[in-house]
Amino acid sequence: MYTYQLLHDFTKKLFLTIGCSNEDATTVADVLLAAELRGIESHGMLRIADYYNLWKNKRITVNPNITVVHETPSTAVVDGDSGLGMVVGKKAMLLAIEKAKAVGTGWVSVRNSNHFGIAGFYSMMALQNDMIGITMTNANPLVAPTFSVDRLLGTNPIAVAIPADKQPAYVADFATTPIARGKLDLMHKKGLKAPDGYVQDKSGKSSNDPNILTQGGAIVPLGGDYLHGSHKGYCLGSIVDLFSSMLSGAGYGPWVPPSVAYLPVKENPDVKGTGHFFGAMRIDAFRPASEFKEMMDKWILTFRNSNPTEGHEKVLVPGDPERENEIKRMKEGIPVMPLLIEKVNEIADELKIEKI
Amino acid sequence: MYTYQLLHDFTKKLFLTIGCSNEDATTVADVLLAAELRGIESHGMLRIADYYNLWKNKRITVNPNITVVHETPSTAVVDGDSGLGMVVGKKAMLLAIEKAKAVGTGWVSVRNSNHFGIAGFYSMMALQNDMIGITMTNANPLVAPTFSVDRLLGTNPIAVAIPADKQPAYVADFATTPIARGKLDLMHKKGLKAPDGYVQDKSGKSSNDPNILTQGGAIVPLGGDYLHGSHKGYCLGSIVDLFSSMLSGAGYGPWVPPSVAYLPVKENPDVKGTGHFFGAMRIDAFRPASEFKEMMDKWILTFRNSNPTEGHEKVLVPGDPERENEIKRMKEGIPVMPLLIEKVNEIADELKIEKI
Repeated sequence: MYTYQLLHDFTKKLFLTIGCSNEDATTVADVLLAAELRGIESHGMLRIADYYNLWKNKRITVNPNITVVHETPSTAVVDGDSGLGMVVGKKAMLLAIEKAKAVGTGWVSVRNSNHFGIAGFYSMMALQNDMIGITMTNANPLVAPTFSVDRLLGTNPIAVAIPADKQPAYVADFATTPIARGKLDLMHKKGLKAPDGYVQDKSGKSSNDPNILTQGGAIVPLGGDYLHGSHKGYCLGSIVDLFSSMLSGAGYGPWVPPSVAYLPVKENPDVKGTGHFFGAMRIDAFRPASEFKEMMDKWILTFRNSNPTEGHEKVLVPGDPERENEIKRMKEGIPVMPLLIEKVNEIADELKIEKI
Repeated sequence: MYTYQLLHDFTKKLFLTIGCSNEDATTVADVLLAAELRGIESHGMLRIADYYNLWKNKRITVNPNITVVHETPSTAVVDGDSGLGMVVGKKAMLLAIEKAKAVGTGWVSVRNSNHFGIAGFYSMMALQNDMIGITMTNANPLVAPTFSVDRLLGTNPIAVAIPADKQPAYVADFATTPIARGKLDLMHKKGLKAPDGYVQDKSGKSSNDPNILTQGGAIVPLGGDYLHGSHKGYCLGSIVDLFSSMLSGAGYGPWVPPSVAYLPVKENPDVKGTGHFFGAMRIDAFRPASEFKEMMDKWILTFRNSNPTEGHEKVLVPGDPERENEIKRMKEGIPVMPLLIEKVNEIADELKIEKI
């Protein structure tokens, strides 16, 4: 177990050392450690090596010149200048929040960015402003549309955070696929089979091989197959791709750059990097904030206090498990796999900074 | 087979006769016939009897005083005064479009409305203005959250329409469940079993009985079960519920009124009717419209021309099947079940108007 502070200090120091400003290194550590606290380890310190290698390969700029390319009172397009996704994402969400303060809502689409960690982090930034936060990002293609054998979409997550009054906020943060790539890798390492409805082989037939992505296979959209509504998951994943790319001119579909350095970038002069989409809606742009939040508490209690199915103690409200993790890990410390500690310590050695 | 014009004239006349204005009766016929043309019969003329009976029960107002309760430059809350959902919905979407013209985007939440037909109709209104249209609505509770036995959510659809250049627009319009209620009814009538992953019984166990909703059962969220991501479908359905209700003060979760007269309204003085959420985003609020639309054409062709799985001729882009239906039915006529013709002719008799 490691304390939040120790891991945050280490992460911040690492990104400072490769050239990030104090502010940006803090942001990167904030986002990665939020994932560790919330139990989304796949988007936490595990990603440090990927970001580091992308930087070594000059695919990430540590002092990006982030610019607003175009704007109206409620919208903007931000060019991230190949910066770290966390740095670009936070700036873009702050801009959405500023616009919402002025005209009720703010909507910012981003191009030329990179993998930004957990989508929920940015949506949750809206909460302290009594706003609803909305975040989407596209990602490198691993998912085949319904009836297609080609990998054209990422796991393209959506995160929505909605403030409440006495109850903790509603925070939904989910991929638009039944499963994330990381979980497939884990099944493969453990010698387990993938359940039906997760992946297909290169001919589009349902597969139980968790390693099928290395053999031309693909993850399927949420729903699993057509009979169970995978075309709805395909709609959802493509909406995320379109909002993240078409509005900003970022890479779309098969043209979203990989978030790891060992995969090459597919050249396409039409498009620019990874895309995100951020939204902020002031709740008092619709009705008095106090009324909204009181009703939100009632909603949360209605759902949480509903009757659970056999074998389950309670019904969860989106955000409950992550918040419980956060409280526990802030108090008791964060478990980090020894292998991951080894990996980041190797980077620390290369950078001549203190190891964990 | 019936011509579009004949069915439209009949539907319009029917709603004129119960007291709708010429404009409103036209709107109702436009929305219902759009569903018939697009092959979404569950939301077409089949619903006439439901609206008629709700009107007879004084649960629908035919000359509603639709008001804007609150607004900012980019937002508004509309009170539908218990009007027909199509009349209220169209007015609210027009308001979102007006706001988008002024400040880039417009977002309107609605309370005190009723069932509004197909969500896609409103999203598609944005297209002719070079805008992206977004529509959500909550609906009477038939869906149990993951790990719950209680029916707390509707099939809560989302529709997103995105303009393209030479290609027809992208139009996604989908429920946040694997299946709609209408299809379960059909299976029951045909004596078929429901596949796994559609419904659960009153104790929350997976069921294959398509009639289980009449025995305390529930539809499950998109994903089917926890292993296949039903918690993501639950997130999605609840986001639709929250955007439709919390922002406007409409009924939420279990408090959304039934869209049929034979089910009573559950009294809750805190909330007002059915809720919707509409959004319009001007594409040139982000980048030049011509650039956006050219890139959109490339996206559509990339997906449509990808390699299909065995047994499928092509990969579909959201909106393709509905558009193909529309072209075919406009030319060849619309098939309407004899039983449905009988039913609407009974209403025509009651209203002393010419039958089909």
